[in-house]
Amino acid sequence: MKETLNIIKVGGPVVEEESSLQSLLMSFSRIRGNKILVHGGGKIATALADRLGIETQMISGRRITSAEMLKVVTMVYGGLVNKNVVARLQALGVNAVGLTGADMNLILSVKRPAELVNFGFVGDVKYVNVKALEHLIAAGAVPVLAPLTHDKEGNMLNTNADTIASSVAQAMASRFDVTLTFCSSTPGVLRDMSDPSSVIPVITKNDFEALVGSGVISEGMIPKLQNAFDAIAAGVSKVVITSPSALSGGTSVQANPESDD
Amino acid sequence: MKETLNIIKVGGPVVEEESSLQSLLMSFSRIRGNKILVHGGGKIATALADRLGIETQMISGRRITSAEMLKVVTMVYGGLVNKNVVARLQALGVNAVGLTGADMNLILSVKRPAELVNFGFVGDVKYVNVKALEHLIAAGAVPVLAPLTHDKEGNMLNTNADTIASSVAQAMASRFDVTLTFCSSTPGVLRDMSDPSSVIPVITKNDFEALVGSGVISEGMIPKLQNAFDAIAAGVSKVVITSPSALSGGTSVQANPESDD
Repeated sequence: MKETLNIIKVGGPVVEEESSLQSLLMSFSRIRGNKILVHGGGKIATALADRLGIETQMISGRRITSAEMLKVVTMVYGGLVNKNVVARLQALGVNAVGLTGADMNLILSVKRPAELVNFGFVGDVKYVNVKALEHLIAAGAVPVLAPLTHDKEGNMLNTNADTIASSVAQAMASRFDVTLTFCSSTPGVLRDMSDPSSVIPVITKNDFEALVGSGVISEGMIPKLQNAFDAIAAGVSKVVITSPSALSGGTSVQANPESDD
Repeated sequence: MKETLNIIKVGGPVVEEESSLQSLLMSFSRIRGNKILVHGGGKIATALADRLGIETQMISGRRITSAEMLKVVTMVYGGLVNKNVVARLQALGVNAVGLTGADMNLILSVKRPAELVNFGFVGDVKYVNVKALEHLIAAGAVPVLAPLTHDKEGNMLNTNADTIASSVAQAMASRFDVTLTFCSSTPGVLRDMSDPSSVIPVITKNDFEALVGSGVISEGMIPKLQNAFDAIAAGVSKVVITSPSALSGGTSVQANPESDD
């Protein structure tokens, strides 16, 4: 039987607020067994860029990453956010090690071709180094992954944190029984955005299509759930969308009962 | 017989200039066997602080690290410089992993007490995690260390890169035959600062005292050499001061021939 592995992805808004960050780190420290934390930090990057007079441009929720913006995200994601999370986890007794995709060649990507939109220094994941992550985990370390990859040609690249979490979960599923948890500021997928108690406990692929059709699921939640179904199809045992305080409950994303996915 | 371990410390001026950085990384990539790179980055931190309107204050060559400055050095040392060095070493076929003292609790420090001078968030090294570094090296990884430590209470601390290199070298000497190389913009300790060919090939402790007495060795070179003699006294096999292009030649720092150091 495979060992379990919990991969928790925590977005910018959770990392950026002191109370939600502390709540997340406490919950994370209590998870037993193998675990990986993947974090964002977009709002802090935008704030630093502002102070430096570098304009932030987003297209479909994705950051256009100029050479100057690449420096900003390398500093904020790889340095400020990553190392503060690591230091705080160490204080909670978690043997955290903060890493980007360049470290130990953990996540190799290719610069996204400039087609309709030129996203700049943005990387699409090509390869996850399962052996290196396995080795760190076997040594008792808890990887804390920043949303940065590299191209093996000497360049760092900016990569969406949801994509990092999903790619790592899919690759690690060959060796572990993986649960992937997306931790956001809402307690799960809501039937009514204005009512935090309207969490939909289970969503299958069929449900998803119906809920998108009826407009209950919209905007940013669509790619997040698509990502979740891709992960399930690629062998991830369970995908959960929940809030940082519990890291339990929330919405469980599942394949259709009759599906071969 | 102990395995060899080369620890190379590369200062700010070398990291900050494209040509000397590339030269250093090429030389470093050609070193066979176990190796660790320790880097600085002070000038880049000062430049970023300037752009953010944060004043840089130095006392005896050491940075006063306010809460705001701690964010700057965490971004620059732990993010920008560290990850760019790692990505470029990966491109040169070196399996680099960029780390601070917080990662895997590699280097634990205590905040320097505010006595004559309040240095702020500056850490004095208390402990180097030899086992964790050994483990990484055994896995074929090449640690790239940023000059940052932590206090195990959730705080990052700023720590001088020479001190990091020297502390790591001393601790690792229990398990490895360690050569510690300080790589600076001069080709070694010079008899005449204006003549790069006047490198003093060997300096013993007695020579050092005489050269300080006669004024040949002065200013920043005094603590650097003191550091080197401390390392030798603590079991480091060899300390070298040289330039980045060769990582050989330069000045070899040695105990007195008759000494028990």
